Amino acid sequence: MCTHTEKIQSHTHHGCVCEVKIRVRYAETDQMGVVYHANHFVWFEVGRVELLRQLGFSYREMEQDDGCSIAVVDARCRYKAPARYDDEIIVRTRLKNVRESLVHFEYELLRFSDGILLAEGESTHVILDQQLKRRTIPEKYMKAFREAVVRDTQG
Amino acid sequence: MCTHTEKIQSHTHHGCVCEVKIRVRYAETDQMGVVYHANHFVWFEVGRVELLRQLGFSYREMEQDDGCSIAVVDARCRYKAPARYDDEIIVRTRLKNVRESLVHFEYELLRFSDGILLAEGESTHVILDQQLKRRTIPEKYMKAFREAVVRDTQG
Amino acid sequence: MCTHTEKIQSHTHHGCVCEVKIRVRYAETDQMGVVYHANHFVWFEVGRVELLRQLGFSYREMEQDDGCSIAVVDARCRYKAPARYDDEIIVRTRLKNVRESLVHFEYELLRFSDGILLAEGESTHVILDQQLKRRTIPEKYMKAFREAVVRDTQG
Amino acid sequence: MCTHTEKIQSHTHHGCVCEVKIRVRYAETDQMGVVYHANHFVWFEVGRVELLRQLGFSYREMEQDDGCSIAVVDARCRYKAPARYDDEIIVRTRLKNVRESLVHFEYELLRFSDGILLAEGESTHVILDQQLKRRTIPEKYMKAFREAVVRDTQG
Repeated sequence: MCTHTEKIQSHTHHGCVCEVKIRVRYAETDQMGVVYHANHFVWFEVGRVELLRQLGFSYREMEQDDGCSIAVVDARCRYKAPARYDDEIIVRTRLKNVRESLVHFEYELLRFSDGILLAEGESTHVILDQQLKRRTIPEKYMKAFREAVVRDTQG
Repeated sequence: MCTHTEKIQSHTHHGCVCEVKIRVRYAETDQMGVVYHANHFVWFEVGRVELLRQLGFSYREMEQDDGCSIAVVDARCRYKAPARYDDEIIVRTRLKNVRESLVHFEYELLRFSDGILLAEGESTHVILDQQLKRRTIPEKYMKAFREAVVRDTQG
Repeated sequence: MCTHTEKIQSHTHHGCVCEVKIRVRYAETDQMGVVYHANHFVWFEVGRVELLRQLGFSYREMEQDDGCSIAVVDARCRYKAPARYDDEIIVRTRLKNVRESLVHFEYELLRFSDGILLAEGESTHVILDQQLKRRTIPEKYMKAFREAVVRDTQG
Repeated sequence: MCTHTEKIQSHTHHGCVCEVKIRVRYAETDQMGVVYHANHFVWFEVGRVELLRQLGFSYREMEQDDGCSIAVVDARCRYKAPARYDDEIIVRTRLKNVRESLVHFEYELLRFSDGILLAEGESTHVILDQQLKRRTIPEKYMKAFREAVVRDTQG
């Protein structure tokens, strides 16, 4: 079986790291012959969603059942090497911090074939209710999020 | 003033034709050095929306105030020549047919600099209510749509 | 292992059918709460590329080593039911016809959870050389393509 | 004339600020009912390209004639308020810094109707040659870039 995207669980004592593999689509390239830089933020989103799933949550259900949206307030990417068409990319996602209504993720994009780091990023999100007003994270998520936070100091 | 996208009204006795000018974004190219083909359908949507505006309607208000969505049921594009980065493209849109809950649009994409036809397309849409169920077009739109239909037989 | 996208080979006597599973990204939805219709053409491309890989070819190598590009000249999609965020989608691709410099693909998009047909499509492509001029399909591809064509008459 | 996107020149003694107006496309929204956050980076690119044009340069010609590519090495966006479908957005771009092979841009996205700041961002770029190797900025660009840098200290 040849996978386009696959998820590899990787729990540690120090929190939870999620790895998901995607394959670069032709649509994601630009005329420089590499992946257009805005697509890295789409891949980060794929990583976040899979990290939530790894914690036992579906972001779809968070929205539908709990009326929680996770809105981006800050996103950044540092580009180290170009991702290319048909490359398999590992999106490695960590929950860096969580409090009240804020969640902070970190990302690494690695080329699967040789492990080269292609990009690093981070994003901060605020939890919103259905009226798009800020709200605290429901307790069932908060508990799991706190445990999932990767603590560098324990590293 | 240098415009990225501008709309040129062009009413005729035989219906309504909408022309809107857009400029190709780097994000829209792929590694073949031309515009990735799925983007033509995004440009068609820009054409539809401007044709509605030309008829005095805002699609945003159709959704918000009248609870009408226009969902695509069929879309097609025939590609004649590549669109390239930074090209200015004319999106020419016609309302081809309308009845009960169906609307049918036709499109041409032309390069502004030399008038070359880059692509032709068409799309059929069904009007939905807020529960995404099919509904008839509200009379205020229907009246304007009927008048806007481009009748080839009169051409 | 939880897969975003996975490929399921499915050869038959009557040609070659490729099935690849993808998961709908949040980025692919629009404010109607369903997948934006232009993305279906991106998924068709994922299907085409995997069908080529199933035949033993990498489209990346076709471009790099043989200087062959596969350019879309006609693409169409008929939308049957909405695809939604986080749905797993089967992209089923068939090679419908091939001759000289033309290739014709057919697609079905099915929701994995219940097998519902979400959309059907087709696309016609022309083989180009590095100067984006039409050329005949190199013999090594042509042979495999001919064998892969799904012949309805034998069905 | 109803413009989707239009450019408003705004030179000052302290450098060059480029303002370009775009209209939010349906394709750019997501199921939260707002613009998907990765699209802000596409709009920043529209801003950069228009700032270059305002300085008398075409990024297309930079690539074609001078073999210079401008590759992103760092990009960031801070989201203040949601951009919505059909909103007209002002993309305000400044050249913040330039040296040897690095260019640093700053952006603001404002809603045209009420002037509300929707997002702020910045990006750092490196100039590459056709082999995607770092090179110094050709002198004809460097001169114009230096004059265009917005100097806060003179503000």
